[in-house]
Amino acid sequence: MSVTAPLGFRAAGVTAGLKQSGDRDVAVVVNDGPSRAAAAVFTSNRVQAAPVTWSRQVASGGRVRAVVLNSGGANACTGPAGFTDTHATAERLAAALGDSAGEMAVCSTGLIGDRLDMGKLLPAVDAAVAEADRSGGVHAADAIRTTDTVVKIAFRRGASPGPSAGPVTPASPDASASPSGYVIGGMAKGAGMLAPSLATMLCVLTTDADLSAPELDAALRSATAVTFDRLDADGCMSTNDTVLLMASGASGARPGREDFTRVLTEVCADLVRQLQRDAEGASKMVAVEVVGAASEADAVTVARSVARNNLLKCALAGADPNWGRVLIAVGTTDAAFDPDRLNVAINGTWVCRGGAPGDDRSKVDLSGRDVTITVDLSAGPDSATILTTDLTEAYVHENSAYST
Amino acid sequence: MSVTAPLGFRAAGVTAGLKQSGDRDVAVVVNDGPSRAAAAVFTSNRVQAAPVTWSRQVASGGRVRAVVLNSGGANACTGPAGFTDTHATAERLAAALGDSAGEMAVCSTGLIGDRLDMGKLLPAVDAAVAEADRSGGVHAADAIRTTDTVVKIAFRRGASPGPSAGPVTPASPDASASPSGYVIGGMAKGAGMLAPSLATMLCVLTTDADLSAPELDAALRSATAVTFDRLDADGCMSTNDTVLLMASGASGARPGREDFTRVLTEVCADLVRQLQRDAEGASKMVAVEVVGAASEADAVTVARSVARNNLLKCALAGADPNWGRVLIAVGTTDAAFDPDRLNVAINGTWVCRGGAPGDDRSKVDLSGRDVTITVDLSAGPDSATILTTDLTEAYVHENSAYST
Repeated sequence: MSVTAPLGFRAAGVTAGLKQSGDRDVAVVVNDGPSRAAAAVFTSNRVQAAPVTWSRQVASGGRVRAVVLNSGGANACTGPAGFTDTHATAERLAAALGDSAGEMAVCSTGLIGDRLDMGKLLPAVDAAVAEADRSGGVHAADAIRTTDTVVKIAFRRGASPGPSAGPVTPASPDASASPSGYVIGGMAKGAGMLAPSLATMLCVLTTDADLSAPELDAALRSATAVTFDRLDADGCMSTNDTVLLMASGASGARPGREDFTRVLTEVCADLVRQLQRDAEGASKMVAVEVVGAASEADAVTVARSVARNNLLKCALAGADPNWGRVLIAVGTTDAAFDPDRLNVAINGTWVCRGGAPGDDRSKVDLSGRDVTITVDLSAGPDSATILTTDLTEAYVHENSAYST
Repeated sequence: MSVTAPLGFRAAGVTAGLKQSGDRDVAVVVNDGPSRAAAAVFTSNRVQAAPVTWSRQVASGGRVRAVVLNSGGANACTGPAGFTDTHATAERLAAALGDSAGEMAVCSTGLIGDRLDMGKLLPAVDAAVAEADRSGGVHAADAIRTTDTVVKIAFRRGASPGPSAGPVTPASPDASASPSGYVIGGMAKGAGMLAPSLATMLCVLTTDADLSAPELDAALRSATAVTFDRLDADGCMSTNDTVLLMASGASGARPGREDFTRVLTEVCADLVRQLQRDAEGASKMVAVEVVGAASEADAVTVARSVARNNLLKCALAGADPNWGRVLIAVGTTDAAFDPDRLNVAINGTWVCRGGAPGDDRSKVDLSGRDVTITVDLSAGPDSATILTTDLTEAYVHENSAYST
């Protein structure tokens, strides 16, 4: 279902030939309205790809008619020529839809530093628009994969507190949306470079709820702050990270802000779990849970430091409950804590109590794929969780061979 | 020669049985004076091992008679009992020397979270003191190894601007020190957890120059700031990092501050290169050189960010000149730069010019062990270099199996 689960959207994924594999590499998601309200968040990396520069400008207008996404090349660090390529891509999409390029978002993913083959990309934009329909969500999700081994898609239904007062005219008939509710769908990609200030490289979210751009923006920032921003697989931040939320209004439902944010957060969390599960070379799904923090910010800081500690991540790959490396990571932060009051549990066994050895580490079972590390700072009531993975030989192998 | 190169020092390395391998694991370095002036810098990790807490207190007095170092256990995260163990170790060393425990430094390295076997350690302290002599420097350096594959030792001779006015009575006759000059010697260990705010886990520096504790402190802080603090192999910071500088004054030489700092910096830089070369699992010795920075602090920030980027470090392991990953790391900093004016060279080939592709990356030769990455921020006159290594499957393997 993916991005076409909500009413008002069509999508497609086609093969342009940008990927040497011959797999799908160009996707479009088209919003047929009646609304075009949209919001987006982007990488905070100061080195930004041309499509990020372009799409940030588009999204600032609060309206997005369609987005075109390509794998097989990030169009990052490509200079003014790369920006011209992004502009030309948006113009081509606009022409195919008979619309304005100023409401066309563009996303790219793949290797940095290479120009895109526009001779292949532009005809594929036409082909994708021609193919786009209500069944194209999975093909679109497939087309944005790079080293992702599986497509990542999700959707949730939201119950509107009351039906919209106005008349509802869905863009196309579909039993998946009921007139009194709304749907949020999404697709994502991003197996490497999962780091904060956006964990995924690319994510498109769609909804048939009828909300304004500022309402969407507030919900998106709330949802990503506790989902994408809390996945940190390798501490690296991409030049291309984009999360785009498009609303068609086709259900006519006008959910309350809290309700919509909750459902949107569920969709984002679902996608994030899929990204974590498919992170490059990972053998463990690790949740670093910090409790007893003086503030949520402290909890996030400590959890992120633990999640980024290479030595700990290597230990987890070896199923070694090396809690000393947890304390090392905690100790490098400026969070409020007393080293002699730190407690650490690994999969529920409190291996460190009061900064010293606790229960026997041989009691820790690390044979499974899921690992929970709990750090109790004994400094307050707040908590936060960062999701990460272990650091494996497979990760190194995959990332040492990527562009060669 | 190691720590016994300067006059006035004796050392030994013996086997206590703390290491399962049966290799040497306890070292002592004794300063026989006439001076006992000393200075030290320690890890900035807030989770500190018991010996760090102890030795920081000792060093704050500006006088150190002797130091005992053990491998086979870090005595970190061991609670009050661990501190009692450190205290008992210092008392035993003091008793063996007929001196005060308040001038006995203690250093430990090895696994975190386990108590030391004091029944093995304390007799070994006696044995080490009994064996200590002018030829023991290499044995001491051997005894502090953990995963280090080789001992790390260095020494330099400094020419005093003029001989000391007072009479010189070397503690023992030795041709390695001339009466008009002075010598600085050192040993270090630390193959993993090489990160800033101390790169090595343990380093002992000795000199027969006659300088006060404040003079030694100023020189040590200057020297470590541009050597140990600029080695960043895996971004992890130990609980035990210690650099201790002890001065016997036995040469009678009173070098000027600049001269002494220069020679001390050379000794530290020599040891740092040895640490880098022996970093766990490393196949490349990488120098990240940032030029054109608006300030030295900016240059260090950018170089450290590049040196810590796992994706880049994996690429280097694969001999892949992936300059996009350099830009990604630069972009995450708050240093002054314009993304469109960034230039990057790898081993002298400017693969990125003006934030876009420069010379053909196929011209980059990464077949050798040494790699220099040059980042030109085009923002000012300042520069700095951080030393690091690549991230290899061997690193992961070694660190996933360390404690199991």
